[in-house]
Amino acid sequence: MNDQLRKAFEGKEVLVTGGLGFVGSNLAARLVDCGAHVLLMDAMIPGLGGNLFNVEPVRDRVVVNFSDIRDEHSMNYVVRGKDFIFHLAGQNDHVLSLTDPYSDIDINIKGSVVLLEACRKFNPEARLVYTGTRGEYGSVAKLPASEDAPINPKGLYELSSLTSQKIFKIYHDNHGISSVTLRLTNIYGERAQMLHSRFGVANWFIRQAIDGETIRVFGDGQILRDFLYVQDCVDAILMAASSEQAYGEVLNVGDDKASSFLELAKVAIEEAGSGDWEFAPFTQERAAQEPGDFYSDISKIRRIVGWEPITSLRAGVKQTVDFYRHNKPQYW
Amino acid sequence: MNDQLRKAFEGKEVLVTGGLGFVGSNLAARLVDCGAHVLLMDAMIPGLGGNLFNVEPVRDRVVVNFSDIRDEHSMNYVVRGKDFIFHLAGQNDHVLSLTDPYSDIDINIKGSVVLLEACRKFNPEARLVYTGTRGEYGSVAKLPASEDAPINPKGLYELSSLTSQKIFKIYHDNHGISSVTLRLTNIYGERAQMLHSRFGVANWFIRQAIDGETIRVFGDGQILRDFLYVQDCVDAILMAASSEQAYGEVLNVGDDKASSFLELAKVAIEEAGSGDWEFAPFTQERAAQEPGDFYSDISKIRRIVGWEPITSLRAGVKQTVDFYRHNKPQYW
Repeated sequence: MNDQLRKAFEGKEVLVTGGLGFVGSNLAARLVDCGAHVLLMDAMIPGLGGNLFNVEPVRDRVVVNFSDIRDEHSMNYVVRGKDFIFHLAGQNDHVLSLTDPYSDIDINIKGSVVLLEACRKFNPEARLVYTGTRGEYGSVAKLPASEDAPINPKGLYELSSLTSQKIFKIYHDNHGISSVTLRLTNIYGERAQMLHSRFGVANWFIRQAIDGETIRVFGDGQILRDFLYVQDCVDAILMAASSEQAYGEVLNVGDDKASSFLELAKVAIEEAGSGDWEFAPFTQERAAQEPGDFYSDISKIRRIVGWEPITSLRAGVKQTVDFYRHNKPQYW
Repeated sequence: MNDQLRKAFEGKEVLVTGGLGFVGSNLAARLVDCGAHVLLMDAMIPGLGGNLFNVEPVRDRVVVNFSDIRDEHSMNYVVRGKDFIFHLAGQNDHVLSLTDPYSDIDINIKGSVVLLEACRKFNPEARLVYTGTRGEYGSVAKLPASEDAPINPKGLYELSSLTSQKIFKIYHDNHGISSVTLRLTNIYGERAQMLHSRFGVANWFIRQAIDGETIRVFGDGQILRDFLYVQDCVDAILMAASSEQAYGEVLNVGDDKASSFLELAKVAIEEAGSGDWEFAPFTQERAAQEPGDFYSDISKIRRIVGWEPITSLRAGVKQTVDFYRHNKPQYW
């Protein structure tokens, strides 16, 4: 698989928006390994996860462009000459959208259009990957959720992701801007922000375990999720980008095997060797946004791209604990 | 039916956004007839249809507030104390969105959020009606199109309408802001702008017929639409607003009987007593946006609201011709 990816990206010009964030920086490191020339764009909006330390191991092999995806003029330059553009920048806080709906529209929806307009005008040949969220589905009656399940986003964050996905599709169909859009499930792992719990619940559990704190498991802890390790997610993104048949498609990036929040808490505590857990009631805001059990039907990405997750929850959590134990001052 | 509507709206405080536009002004006149106290909000953006003459017959019985739906501060005032809010303001030009995608996001998507946030903060008890477009469906495999048909908007204008519809639903479900959302088909009739053909093709045919010009019918003229007369549309809006069971629902406002563009041209020419028609090739932009045949399954609104169209295409076109013949200087 790595040979295939090296062949796809070696010597290629690549832009990653949100490139100093969680998934973006892990993707950047892998692209560098593949021999790509990597430009990272990041607005460094406080709280969204951008962190220069995330790219410290590859700092001299990437170029960083500090700018906001809503800034048309800078976008019109950074897209030029790129073979691949990975659009990972975004506002990810699904609780924030209940009190501040404008960020979702402005950053997530308008930002996608700024990128696509820049490509239309200055680089219509680029291949684009957009990463949305499994939250687009909302509550799902039939699990695992396939890409053609009914779409009922529960909040503006999730809706902004759906709207962006459809914007990419419109530019694909009407303007010939090739793209594949992915719906990422709950991703966890190294290089995520660890300062707050407004998004990234799996990483938050891991932080609490490392700190020897008591993890508050909402409800009865039995709600299921297909937690996905970030390196598996990076594989999916790169393999989708290098699969000709993926363009124009929406693909789930998740797992058809699920774990409960309680299992996650227990694994985090065991791998950290510290911490405890207790049940806690849902806050009103979280309850309103909670879609219940979710895990992904990944038969489509398996078939078209040949990807599936390879890291167990325990192995992924162990890697994550190790990373943050060694780099705590940069994230705490 | 008029007794029922009078009972629902008499003495009620009502806001109509886009109230000086095509549908908004016709709605305003009917609300005044029902005895409602009517506040009209309009940004008077050139080309979008706002025209003070539209409310000339009821000018001393409505209040006009010139402001933009994106203006949070004015919106926070105009929503107060309203029993019903009809949200008709919007950018309606589906061809424009191919060259200027930002208006769709800014006016149509953000504007809806500004209204809903204002209601959340200052009038959570208001009953809201949002009018979207049948364009949300995109190309439809099975006709007539029912509300649960697959949703594949072909352009950003149509997508912005879909996103707005889902925003209303999210505020309905999460914040208790009651709303019903309608998907309007091609509406024609008196008080639409007549200066350009970028939207409102039926009215444009009527103008050309009145002017004795040659109507250019794109393609073979056989594409079907459920053209709907504006007074029937106003009935649907008012009846939906007054139906308790309609809230939280998406309802088609159209007709399950369709006419071809060629039939429309011929009826316009016959009722005007002037004009001619010829076939013309689609422009590239229009072809990209053209979803093919469309007409609406209206069984849901029939069942829940008790509405159905009552005006034939010929009768509606005749009324429209008469109106513009008498008021040409105000629209030409």
